[in-house]
Amino acid sequence: MNKTRIGIVGYGNLGRGVIKALRHAPDMELVGVFTRRDPAALKLDVPCYALTDAAQYKDQIDVMILCGGSLKDIPEQAPQLIQHFNLVDSYDNHAQIASYYKTMDAAARASSKVAVISTGWDPGLFSIQRVLSEAVLPQAVTHSFWGPGVSQGHSDAIRRVEGVADGIQYTLPIESAIAAAEGGLQQEMRSGERHTRVCYVVLEEGADPARVAQEIKSMPAYFADYDTDVHFISAETLKAEHSGMAHGGLVLRSGVTGDENAATISYRLELSSNPEFTSSVNVAFARACKRLADRADYGAKTVLDIPIGLLSPRSAQNLRETMV
Amino acid sequence: MNKTRIGIVGYGNLGRGVIKALRHAPDMELVGVFTRRDPAALKLDVPCYALTDAAQYKDQIDVMILCGGSLKDIPEQAPQLIQHFNLVDSYDNHAQIASYYKTMDAAARASSKVAVISTGWDPGLFSIQRVLSEAVLPQAVTHSFWGPGVSQGHSDAIRRVEGVADGIQYTLPIESAIAAAEGGLQQEMRSGERHTRVCYVVLEEGADPARVAQEIKSMPAYFADYDTDVHFISAETLKAEHSGMAHGGLVLRSGVTGDENAATISYRLELSSNPEFTSSVNVAFARACKRLADRADYGAKTVLDIPIGLLSPRSAQNLRETMV
Repeated sequence: MNKTRIGIVGYGNLGRGVIKALRHAPDMELVGVFTRRDPAALKLDVPCYALTDAAQYKDQIDVMILCGGSLKDIPEQAPQLIQHFNLVDSYDNHAQIASYYKTMDAAARASSKVAVISTGWDPGLFSIQRVLSEAVLPQAVTHSFWGPGVSQGHSDAIRRVEGVADGIQYTLPIESAIAAAEGGLQQEMRSGERHTRVCYVVLEEGADPARVAQEIKSMPAYFADYDTDVHFISAETLKAEHSGMAHGGLVLRSGVTGDENAATISYRLELSSNPEFTSSVNVAFARACKRLADRADYGAKTVLDIPIGLLSPRSAQNLRETMV
Repeated sequence: MNKTRIGIVGYGNLGRGVIKALRHAPDMELVGVFTRRDPAALKLDVPCYALTDAAQYKDQIDVMILCGGSLKDIPEQAPQLIQHFNLVDSYDNHAQIASYYKTMDAAARASSKVAVISTGWDPGLFSIQRVLSEAVLPQAVTHSFWGPGVSQGHSDAIRRVEGVADGIQYTLPIESAIAAAEGGLQQEMRSGERHTRVCYVVLEEGADPARVAQEIKSMPAYFADYDTDVHFISAETLKAEHSGMAHGGLVLRSGVTGDENAATISYRLELSSNPEFTSSVNVAFARACKRLADRADYGAKTVLDIPIGLLSPRSAQNLRETMV
């Protein structure tokens, strides 16, 4: 069997995660990492090329996995690279996914390529579970919980506050809210009723902690609707105790079948490394991406458009014999 | 929008569950129930027809949902009905699914129909979760737990023992085994290490309880490999206290990403009515079945062959805007 040949765009946490995940995908192989930096300076033990040269490798790569950020990198790179490559990304700007899909669908059809967008776990696995559980249990309410884990967006928001040198934000699910959901609560809870936020902040010299805490806690959208704790720590403590990348979450749907019979579906992830797990999901969707391209099923796809069997290294026949 | 027109074959627990589930599917409508019994004798408040007349309704029904048993009904009915109808079933004889697929795939292609086989929750939703979690987390072990709930197959086995007038069997997951799985155990457990079995037996007059208990507990495959409790009760107690149809289960996959970062994926169902939930899953797959037929994507399909988005009454565009 020919192996699926993978390229990686971007050498951050996600890109490194893909390299590790490919070691456990015997049907796939890494062709190289493409970077905007000086390839020689990265000193990788895998081939590394300048992103500007990517098109030269179009016949050697089956699927490119985009490992940059959703704010600037992916929206800029994906419409270019789709001209030459099938793509997988974990674009996670939920509000823009429908519009990003339109752009990529048109571009992918024009170049006869496949773009699998917004994989990972949310969007990604959680999207699958939300849609699946709503479809099979229509008389019910879905409750989503995130954490305990670091929210990159909220950490960035803290760092923009005047007087803050550095900081990190943890999202924590509220245990009593999880218990209420598990108990069959048939009413949606606001995000602030489901989560608390805890911030660890390194102050700039001379900054007033009371003002900084107040400014963080009252920030609209990010913190104002939540119970928020702000702790001040040193830069050393931040580095020593807050470099972990654990995350996770829970999608719980609870309601009834028929007239009155309670039914609950719950899906939980507990991850010591958020980026490594996201990368591992990317790799599974890269396998599906190749298979869709082989069938000439071109265009953009979300995780909702792809049969689950295509993610597995097993054949359809083997899946029917052993896994259904 | 034209509603998807549904026929039901068989009026047992599953068939009644489909009738209830359709009330919560505004995009679908029930055409009627097809039965081997005398349709008039059933006295239903929905249209009821003789199964032998089914072919007369082929232009009025988009999808037939087969609600009979997997041992005899489905293997006999499905190859006949696929000549005229798209079909959905919950065929659950795991060992025979691959061979049943082959039969139905050939038949469905020959008649330009779609047969969605083995939906429900196991096979069905659990199959999806087993394949999905293995694909995204390859360095790990999957542990499946069933119950607490009634196993029909094991209840039937009890009733075949000499001296048994009636009986029921509950499968119970072992809490310490669930805890071991959640703790990251990287070793598969035998089913008997994950489950215990509890039997409630009504004896025939004069039967020896010690012999019956011994015969049940030593039955190969069914009970011999399990810790099995046998309780003797009256027919009245059996009827009064053991008519519930609750069930559920857990698919838990635990392992690592990268070199050492723990990751756990768990999927849990808690169902007060096993047949009603199975029916509700059938109805969601009937929606997908119609959509596949509309695309002329004929043949047999398992739950692994169908994009999750097709199960939802929402449009693909709406799903991208609200659910991804």
